[in-house]
Amino acid sequence: MPLNRFPAIQECIEAFQRLPGIGPKGAQRIVFHLLTKDPEAAGQIASSCETLQERVGLCPLCHMLVEGEAGGEDCAVCADRDSSTICVVQEPSDVFAVERAGEFRGKFHVLMGVIAPLDGVNPEDLTIGALLDRVKKDSVKEVILALNPNMAGEGTSLYLAKLLKPLGVRVTQLAHGLPMGSHLEYADELTLTRSLEGRREI
Amino acid sequence: MPLNRFPAIQECIEAFQRLPGIGPKGAQRIVFHLLTKDPEAAGQIASSCETLQERVGLCPLCHMLVEGEAGGEDCAVCADRDSSTICVVQEPSDVFAVERAGEFRGKFHVLMGVIAPLDGVNPEDLTIGALLDRVKKDSVKEVILALNPNMAGEGTSLYLAKLLKPLGVRVTQLAHGLPMGSHLEYADELTLTRSLEGRREI
Repeated sequence: MPLNRFPAIQECIEAFQRLPGIGPKGAQRIVFHLLTKDPEAAGQIASSCETLQERVGLCPLCHMLVEGEAGGEDCAVCADRDSSTICVVQEPSDVFAVERAGEFRGKFHVLMGVIAPLDGVNPEDLTIGALLDRVKKDSVKEVILALNPNMAGEGTSLYLAKLLKPLGVRVTQLAHGLPMGSHLEYADELTLTRSLEGRREI
Repeated sequence: MPLNRFPAIQECIEAFQRLPGIGPKGAQRIVFHLLTKDPEAAGQIASSCETLQERVGLCPLCHMLVEGEAGGEDCAVCADRDSSTICVVQEPSDVFAVERAGEFRGKFHVLMGVIAPLDGVNPEDLTIGALLDRVKKDSVKEVILALNPNMAGEGTSLYLAKLLKPLGVRVTQLAHGLPMGSHLEYADELTLTRSLEGRREI
């Protein structure tokens, strides 16, 4: 009695398996949970997933996700924020991460990825042109590059800095160093090197 | 800019958070993945979850999940199997686990849980009555108890054995011992005790 005698269950398992962090076993567990423990959750997931794409769009200015509004100056991210600083992030979810810190009062710009030629992502696939336009048009004083501290993120940051500096704007990058609450003993060599390079007077 | 300014995203995150093995961070990652990386998957999940309950029912005989068929002798689990042996499992997913071993040729009976009075699960909440009826009516020779080897599973096995033995049927339980491929050094005391108790001539 293989699973292919249960087409509805199999289809549902395959759908959940496409999601990040869910493997074959996890997907199976979820589907049996929906069937035997929490049938209501299946309806909740179905309806929220069905309308997700329709209800969420992209702001044409900052390229962050927007809901219900027209985007631009009215979008939830751009509205009522200091327009002299733009924080450049890789993904929409990174906007929420920066917002959780609660320190940043400026606007955002979502790149929609980083330059990774081996994965087929070239500069023209990102929202780099739109970022340069924003910096040229608006009275932007500083661009903060908040990309992930890895090869692709560092490379993209250098690429962006080269394009942005000639526009007469200050280009900065998030500090790299020891994460708060960590132990020096367990820090990797590169992080320690960066934290030494970036040391500051106290 | 808190997440409550994104009601559609928030609803979707809450729906995924109800699933087993998915926490708040995982649910957020899934929703952003659906929005920015794999919009097609959202539709696939929505449609498969929407029809899941309708397409999957319970076999009135073995209480295993069935699709499309009327259940009973025609259900995917009961059909063409040796009716002299019944393997009693806790959940529908356990049927697939036993089937993966590929050894068992008899029929199944899904208890739909184990006796756990502290969680409000009493014997009458399970399919024990239906199991006794099956054993009385059909020419069942052996009932294999394949419940999880923990307190609730062991207790339920003893309870079932007491009810089944007077019906003149052989009642057995899956062997407990060292799992294949494991190391004796890392085995817990109870497992080692059980494997000693259950030792057999070679």
